[in-house]
This record gives sequence, C-alpha cells and structure tokens, in this order.
Amino acid sequence: MNLRPIGIFDSGVGGLTVLRAIRARLPSESLVYLGDTARVPYGNKSPATIARYATEDSQFLLAQGVKMIVIACNTASALAAPILREKFPDTPILGMIGPGSRAAVAATRNTRIGVIATAATIGSGAYEQRLRDTFAAQHRSPAAISSVACPLFVPLAEEGETNSDIARLAAAKYLLPLRNSGIDTLVLGCTHYPLLRNVIAETMGPDVTLVDSAEAAASETAALLASQNLLAPPDTSPSDSFFVTDAAARFSTIAAAILGNPPASLELVSLGAA
Amino acid sequence: MNLRPIGIFDSGVGGLTVLRAIRARLPSESLVYLGDTARVPYGNKSPATIARYATEDSQFLLAQGVKMIVIACNTASALAAPILREKFPDTPILGMIGPGSRAAVAATRNTRIGVIATAATIGSGAYEQRLRDTFAAQHRSPAAISSVACPLFVPLAEEGETNSDIARLAAAKYLLPLRNSGIDTLVLGCTHYPLLRNVIAETMGPDVTLVDSAEAAASETAALLASQNLLAPPDTSPSDSFFVTDAAARFSTIAAAILGNPPASLELVSLGAA
Repeated sequence: MNLRPIGIFDSGVGGLTVLRAIRARLPSESLVYLGDTARVPYGNKSPATIARYATEDSQFLLAQGVKMIVIACNTASALAAPILREKFPDTPILGMIGPGSRAAVAATRNTRIGVIATAATIGSGAYEQRLRDTFAAQHRSPAAISSVACPLFVPLAEEGETNSDIARLAAAKYLLPLRNSGIDTLVLGCTHYPLLRNVIAETMGPDVTLVDSAEAAASETAALLASQNLLAPPDTSPSDSFFVTDAAARFSTIAAAILGNPPASLELVSLGAA
Repeated sequence: MNLRPIGIFDSGVGGLTVLRAIRARLPSESLVYLGDTARVPYGNKSPATIARYATEDSQFLLAQGVKMIVIACNTASALAAPILREKFPDTPILGMIGPGSRAAVAATRNTRIGVIATAATIGSGAYEQRLRDTFAAQHRSPAAISSVACPLFVPLAEEGETNSDIARLAAAKYLLPLRNSGIDTLVLGCTHYPLLRNVIAETMGPDVTLVDSAEAAASETAALLASQNLLAPPDTSPSDSFFVTDAAARFSTIAAAILGNPPASLELVSLGAA
C-alpha cells in the first residue's frame, strides 16, 4: 500500500484524457500531472529533442515523489519510453503504445488495424512493431496494419475545432484511405485524438472500433500498481496537483472542459532552461 | 560600411519569407538565420515565455557577431521587441509591427484596416496601438481597426496545407467577418501568412490590399543600415548561415520550397536547456 502519487505527463492538455480515465479507475490514488505547454507540441519535433523533453518531464515528476510514471503522450511513449526506463530503472513507467496495441489486438476481428498518430509517432514505427509483437505473442499475425500521420489533429483539438466543418474536412483527408482499406479497428494513437472522437467515428463509419489508449492505459496502471503492491488504501482521499510550463490560464480552461472542473491546484514551473 | 552579417530570427520557417525579401533587397549583405524549431510555435505561448525565447534567440545571434537583429516573427515582435531593445541597447533591432503598420497606413484609402495574426500577437494589442500611433503621427485617425486571431494558419502553413479545401475553409471561418466589415487593407501579421496568400486573397476578394510585413521590413532594414552607415560595400559576395534548434532536415525541405534552394550551411544548435 502506498500513498505516494502517480505521475502523469504530456506535452500539453491531451494527457488529461488519460488522467480522467485513471481518476475514474483509481479513485483513491493521488495524481500529479505535468503539461509541458511551453514546448507543446512534441509530435513535430525530432527524436533527440523529444527524448530530452521527456527526460526533463520525468525528472520533474520524480522530484514530486511519484511512485510510477504514466507517459500520457504517444509521441513521448514512442520515442522515449525505452530511454526513460533505462535512465530511471527504479520507477515503473507505463507508455501508451503497449496498452493501445493490446487493446487493438483484442478488439479486431479481421486483423486489419489502422493507427493514426502524430508524424513523430508514425515515423518511429513503434505502433506497427508493438502490434506485430502482440499478435506474435498469441501465435497470430495481422492481415494488415495501416499507419497514417494526422498532423493537423493536435492543433484542431488544441483550438477547440473538434466538431466543425474544418475538423470534418481534415478527418476526410486523413481517414478516407484508411476507411477504404478494410480495417475494422482504429487506434487513436495520440492522447489528443479522443477529443475529436465524434468526427473520427462519423468518418470511419459504425463498423470500425475506435481504440482509445486512455482506457487501456488506466487498466494497465491499476494492474501494474497492484502487482507491485503500490496501490493506495481503498479509503484514501486523494489530492491532485497540476503543473504546466506555460500559459496556466489557458490550460485551466481546457482542463475544466475535459475534467468537468478547473484544477484546484495549478502551478507554473520551468524545465530545462532557467 | 560593415561586413558583419544581419541576424534574423523566427520560431520556425515563417521568417524565411522575411529573409527572402531582405536577400532580394540587399544582395550584398550576409545573413544569419535562426529558426527555434525545438520550441515552435510561439503564437500560443504566454508573453513571459515568448520574451524568454526571444532573448535567447537574440543572444545566439549576437554571439554570431551580427550588426543588427531583425525579429522575423510578429509574435516575438509584439511581445518582446521593447524588452530586447532594453537588453541589447547597442544593437539596432527591427520588429515586424512597425513596418507592417506603416505599410498598411500608406495603403489604405478608407482608413478601415484589418489585422490577422496569432492569438498572442492579437492579444497583445501591439498592431492596433501601432496603427493608431502611425495615423496620429500624420494627424489622422482610422475609421476602424479590426483584429482577428487565426490560430490554425501557422499549423496549416507548416503542414503545407496552403492551397487546399481545409485552408479555404479555415480562411472562410476567420476572414468572412473581416471581409464583411468593409476594410480595404489587411495586414498579414504573421510571417507564416504570406505562404497562405492565395487562399487569403481569394477569400478577401480583389478590393482588399494585402500587406505583407516582409517587404516593408526589408525596406526598413535597408534604410536603418544606411542611416547608421552599416551597409556592406555594394560589390561584396555575401554568405548566408542557417541555424535551427531541431529537425534540420524538415527545415531544409521547407526552406528549399520558400527560397528556391536548400540552405548551403545549416547547423543544429541548443538554446536554453543544454
């Protein structure tokens, strides 16, 4: 049993969809969230820069005394999870790629899976590799894996363009080739994309299952803490803290929309440069 | 006469439209360009963070021995130009707001001017103030100044969506209210926006003059260097250097599209954090 908080980081607000899922799944756990809003987005940056930012984010969370780290950002998970596990071997670290891949393999019937994510995540090939490994562990192999980068989805979500004609046109541009490829399962491989879920579902049609890594990551967070005997006692009153590296007022507004309430505790911090 | 280079910085690739105008106007000047691609975009960050980034960008250029600094980024100009002039009093510093405002006041016939820019630039009120000051210096006053933030234009330009249906829909969303307001002059108050010039012109119609601060800034750069006797001799063979803080290959591709050739000299550097 362990009262220390769970650390969660993202480049900005997208990871709040993961925090929301963890909060619902683990009501007794205290959570510390870091949004690196001074350097958002990560998805158009290089692997070396993403690894440096993710390392600084993790160091900050560890300084807050967290008992595990959830990388609530697919880009950082794809590019930096192995590096973080090597740098911080004593802390359990959960990325988004594993939970998302396992949920997709469990959901597909025709083993044709699509993945949508940032340019950096798609460029890394991390989902494709993990999906193949997950099938292989079950002595299966996929009929097809199709990956598409959707670089406008993060700015659309950040600007609140989640249910507009612009969002629908962007979805058509990115998703119609995927829809026509016969996939039955689509991984939302970026924590911002659940904010565009309606438009994505509309474009893909009712026969395609959308996999949101947030739900899968929340289950795996619970399982991981349980297996290491790190869960807080069930009757604990949790306290959540939020940190951002820039533009706290804007973050607070978006957080209120995603979480239902503005963060009670929100602090502006500096990472990297002084 | 002075052989030292002109320093130009931007958050990313947008400032290359300013570099291109300065290169055309001042063929004997050597240029040093810095694109802070590790922290792009600036337009959705807070004033304090933008000021810090602009200070680090300027310090880097000064370390390259530049004789003047052109802030080829409207957001940094709007939020940080006064701070930079105070911190670096010995270096002439030209922002985008003054040249853009003077060009707009010279162009308008009905003194109804529109300004489009990032959320940070619009939020600063810098253009509105400078336009009023420019009119006042001529003992005139404007009939109307209308400012609109276009937060999706930078991601659209960065993703090469400059002539697509998505770009047209975004332009309609942001610009139709401006078009209906009776302006005859529209300031493209972000160095990325000239990349969307066709779509903006199409949406605004033939009766609205588009003011691109790049041309105005290039003229004022020439005038400022001449007034301080800092021009290079007319027969000098210039050499240009480009620096970015991330993703050099991507920068090189976009630079080739804007400038006609990929940068001959492009180096990856770190600012702020090590």
